[in-house]
Amino acid sequence: MPDTRPQPGPAAGPDGFSVSTGPLPSSRKVHLPGTLHPDVRVAMREIDLEPSSGEPPVRVYDSSGPYTDPAAAIDIRRGLPPLRAAWIAARGDVEAYPGRAVKPEDNGRRSTDRGADLPPFDRADRPVLRGKAGAAPTQLAYARAGIVTPEMEYVAVRETLGRRQAAARAADGESFGAALPPVVTPEFVRDEIARGRAILPANINHPESEPMIIGRNFLVKINANIGNSAVASSVAEEVEKMVWSIRWGADTVMDLSTGRNIHDTREWIIRNAPVPIGTVPLYQALEKVNGVAEDLTWEVFRDTLIEQAEQGVDYFTIHAGLRLAHIPLTARRVTGIVSRGGSIMAKWCLAHHRESFLYERFADICALCRTYDIALSLGDGLRPGSIADANDAAQFAELETLGELTKVAWDHDVQVMIEGPGHVPMHKIKENMDKQLALCGEAPFYTLGPLVTDIAPGYDHITSGIGAAMIGWFGTAMLCYVTPKEHLGLPDRDDVKVGVVTYKIAAHAADLAKGHPAAQERDDALSRARFEFRWRDQFRLALDPETAERFHDQTLPAEGAKSAHFCSMCGPKFCSMKISQDIRDAAAASDGMADMAERFRAGGGEIYVRE
Amino acid sequence: MPDTRPQPGPAAGPDGFSVSTGPLPSSRKVHLPGTLHPDVRVAMREIDLEPSSGEPPVRVYDSSGPYTDPAAAIDIRRGLPPLRAAWIAARGDVEAYPGRAVKPEDNGRRSTDRGADLPPFDRADRPVLRGKAGAAPTQLAYARAGIVTPEMEYVAVRETLGRRQAAARAADGESFGAALPPVVTPEFVRDEIARGRAILPANINHPESEPMIIGRNFLVKINANIGNSAVASSVAEEVEKMVWSIRWGADTVMDLSTGRNIHDTREWIIRNAPVPIGTVPLYQALEKVNGVAEDLTWEVFRDTLIEQAEQGVDYFTIHAGLRLAHIPLTARRVTGIVSRGGSIMAKWCLAHHRESFLYERFADICALCRTYDIALSLGDGLRPGSIADANDAAQFAELETLGELTKVAWDHDVQVMIEGPGHVPMHKIKENMDKQLALCGEAPFYTLGPLVTDIAPGYDHITSGIGAAMIGWFGTAMLCYVTPKEHLGLPDRDDVKVGVVTYKIAAHAADLAKGHPAAQERDDALSRARFEFRWRDQFRLALDPETAERFHDQTLPAEGAKSAHFCSMCGPKFCSMKISQDIRDAAAASDGMADMAERFRAGGGEIYVRE
Repeated sequence: MPDTRPQPGPAAGPDGFSVSTGPLPSSRKVHLPGTLHPDVRVAMREIDLEPSSGEPPVRVYDSSGPYTDPAAAIDIRRGLPPLRAAWIAARGDVEAYPGRAVKPEDNGRRSTDRGADLPPFDRADRPVLRGKAGAAPTQLAYARAGIVTPEMEYVAVRETLGRRQAAARAADGESFGAALPPVVTPEFVRDEIARGRAILPANINHPESEPMIIGRNFLVKINANIGNSAVASSVAEEVEKMVWSIRWGADTVMDLSTGRNIHDTREWIIRNAPVPIGTVPLYQALEKVNGVAEDLTWEVFRDTLIEQAEQGVDYFTIHAGLRLAHIPLTARRVTGIVSRGGSIMAKWCLAHHRESFLYERFADICALCRTYDIALSLGDGLRPGSIADANDAAQFAELETLGELTKVAWDHDVQVMIEGPGHVPMHKIKENMDKQLALCGEAPFYTLGPLVTDIAPGYDHITSGIGAAMIGWFGTAMLCYVTPKEHLGLPDRDDVKVGVVTYKIAAHAADLAKGHPAAQERDDALSRARFEFRWRDQFRLALDPETAERFHDQTLPAEGAKSAHFCSMCGPKFCSMKISQDIRDAAAASDGMADMAERFRAGGGEIYVRE
Repeated sequence: MPDTRPQPGPAAGPDGFSVSTGPLPSSRKVHLPGTLHPDVRVAMREIDLEPSSGEPPVRVYDSSGPYTDPAAAIDIRRGLPPLRAAWIAARGDVEAYPGRAVKPEDNGRRSTDRGADLPPFDRADRPVLRGKAGAAPTQLAYARAGIVTPEMEYVAVRETLGRRQAAARAADGESFGAALPPVVTPEFVRDEIARGRAILPANINHPESEPMIIGRNFLVKINANIGNSAVASSVAEEVEKMVWSIRWGADTVMDLSTGRNIHDTREWIIRNAPVPIGTVPLYQALEKVNGVAEDLTWEVFRDTLIEQAEQGVDYFTIHAGLRLAHIPLTARRVTGIVSRGGSIMAKWCLAHHRESFLYERFADICALCRTYDIALSLGDGLRPGSIADANDAAQFAELETLGELTKVAWDHDVQVMIEGPGHVPMHKIKENMDKQLALCGEAPFYTLGPLVTDIAPGYDHITSGIGAAMIGWFGTAMLCYVTPKEHLGLPDRDDVKVGVVTYKIAAHAADLAKGHPAAQERDDALSRARFEFRWRDQFRLALDPETAERFHDQTLPAEGAKSAHFCSMCGPKFCSMKISQDIRDAAAASDGMADMAERFRAGGGEIYVRE
């Protein structure tokens, strides 16, 4: 069978504006309609299997946006279509306004220094929005008011892959108190958001995003971090990092840029992002005071929040839980403070011997987030950076403060999640989850790893993937990826892919173990393909079809090997699956194994029945 | 500082006989003496740190044998020195005998067909040994008789890295009923072996092996599988696979060769192996009957056991637990029988409609193993090959039989461990461990992974590494590695390394979580190096120093960057560790953070104390 699959490649476009497009192997983009909101069209992916399988296409959750849709016209100079613009406008609680003028320092430049600049994105046709005076245009406020928004229905359809009935077979699992419904309804989504147990990050200035939800009663999500390099060589390079991350499954992307052109880079990313974009505004604020932590002020920070809010950032990481009195608790740590935001704020607090302005101004921050529906991700500035420091007094003192701040955010109708560690040995992971749930009123947990050992630099996607799978099972709603370059350097394109795929593994393993009603369908489809030697179907159903096929072809590149009943690992004579099939064929020809199994069970399950 | 480290490379020797030798970076081989047995000299590795650290060398467990010792003269044509020969002889319970003559079919050849052969290893100076009539020269028999063998003392020194006192700090951990002693004494080793809770695989015909132990009250071990290719191009290539595996940390190696030259390959490997070698004798037996499972007989199988016993195989995987009546239980499985040995035996049982000869002849197998001190690894022929089949009736019915066979082995003074799955979602892993402990009287568990999802071919070292870390924590004594090529093809050299390192991560994470008294010392040393920007020490202390250094150097290759107080991930301005150090320096210059921490605690732990 000839390989006629479209190959991923850059979108058509002038030089410097092309990114990776095209479907994954044997995949089609489908759009499922809403019921309450007929204009809701939820994008997902269907994987077509070999006709010989007799199986229907396998539908999978798809975070890749229009980039994998051959029917979509991709032009990053125009940005993605504003999917949610009409929904936002229809609610009648926001207004357009001129917005803050971009300043040279937003891009890390003195006014006299133009440098090698990115061209600014032309946002002419997208107004800057804010909530009208007194309005709370947040998904949390709507949910509390009993309103099921189109965003909520989008999420409901997305989480169930369009399923309206419970899965044929009840999944087993141990959910540790999570309550995964047989079918996610729009009302369930609303209720979870209203309770603060889930967030739907959706800045009113980021109408291009496809709604998604983060909460422990939904599929476990993953985040990929990207960040610009010191000198941006092209616009596409910056946008491509985001497109590449979501192609392999990132559910949200954090732009952690710290260099120059930071404002323009972010604008290009957001306008082209179908996923929520998060940032750590403190990084940009620090750039504006030339990297001198002591020179940070509330005014500079607030101005940065407004700048990013107007651009459309969907969630802000804010390290407001690190208080002056916590800092001495880190004195005897092996690795001190390892959060960038945390160390910056600790330095500020000590230099001024004052309480953190993020803590003192937290209500003001919430008021601002409320105006744009920006979710808060409360940063764990005191997360442990080594096994030795896990679950220590500093970490848990901060977590307690994060619980206090969670309630403040909720009082302002602001959606909020909590960031977690870090480096934690396996036996201390569950305590993190349990404390977070108890102290933060079940607000979603968003963890980095955790890494279960310190001794494997170069393999920290794996040391952290182990911890991520476990904490995802225990109840973490979103896992922040770690790449093989962690602790060593800036990840490249391959590292990003390996990091994302590793975290998709962790998230999916967690879904299986929690007993998500439909998670096992893809495992079963792939295992059937494996048992029936449908090699192409195995590749198609894999999280990374390209790598699976490449590895197979390293030893058996011939086209015929794609239907051979063995691989090079064991060869034809020793393939257990082949022998196992031979056994079934033989048994089917005689009295039949299933029948034998019945007789075995009928005989009281005695191991050996003489026949 | 110039890099003067010895580089790994082939040993001096004529073409076709060279393998990887040389120490790992900044490492020295040290030998610690026994007390009861002064001729015991236990090899381990010491990693020297930068003089600036002011820290002593870090001593680590070392499975790599003489190959990493520059003082050792490596010549694979002569094999390794017979370390244990005098100990074996001194016990006076074995005798030399001519042994079985090698037959052409041992190497997969008809007598008229010589083909492209390996030269046979010249074993002239190593007699073939067996237990004298009535004698039981097994470590289990010695342990039960109260004898502490040199092998047992070797293990005691090795497990404690020469420590004779409890670690300075008591480790926390959750051991699920394992009882890790503060210090492993020779008597403790003897007692664990006597109880059947640990095995010390040490065929009297493999005197070259350095004693090691497998049991849940010891460090978690890992196994690497190797196997010859269809046409062997050189002797060194075969031996090199074993040397390469142990260089990165494999504690035992299984030779799963199935092609030609299977006898000669094994001889070369065993004579040069400082680790126990395991095999699945059924594979060779099947070769002898031209791959036709139905033609297998007890006589062919027994002859193969003797052949391999005389060569020095340390443990046999035998699928004696798969019984005729179990087979129908697999009828409705998604992936049937996925164990090669299991499928071969199932085919035999069904073809003859007879009980498995491995089960029926199990006492004879034990009697044979007793004569040579070969440990049994009871194979799980019905392990699940997919998430759907995990923990099913077939799997657990076989496990029950394995428990029954364990007691038979013990009755014969034969050491025994139990093989485990396979593909298991996270929430079903612990049940495997609990059932194994209960059914098999705490005999050591030896698991393949388990893989926690089926959907990531190309990344199954990771899907299985997650499960391996968890089941290692729960009590599995040895983890069989899985490479990235699993399910897709034959692993190459890079795959083997990635598989071994991934499993060293899993095993070490398990040791940490179980509360092994000294496991965290390496994590702490690496974390201190990280906090103090001793880049070279980070590389040296890493499980894979070469990859760590290469990743770092991809973005910061300059020599000066090895002492820079940042890496390319965050750059100098945003390095939290640097800022954290600045904070400490500043605090030390004023009233001091430790002092502040004291005052905080003295104040009753109130989070915010106004000063």
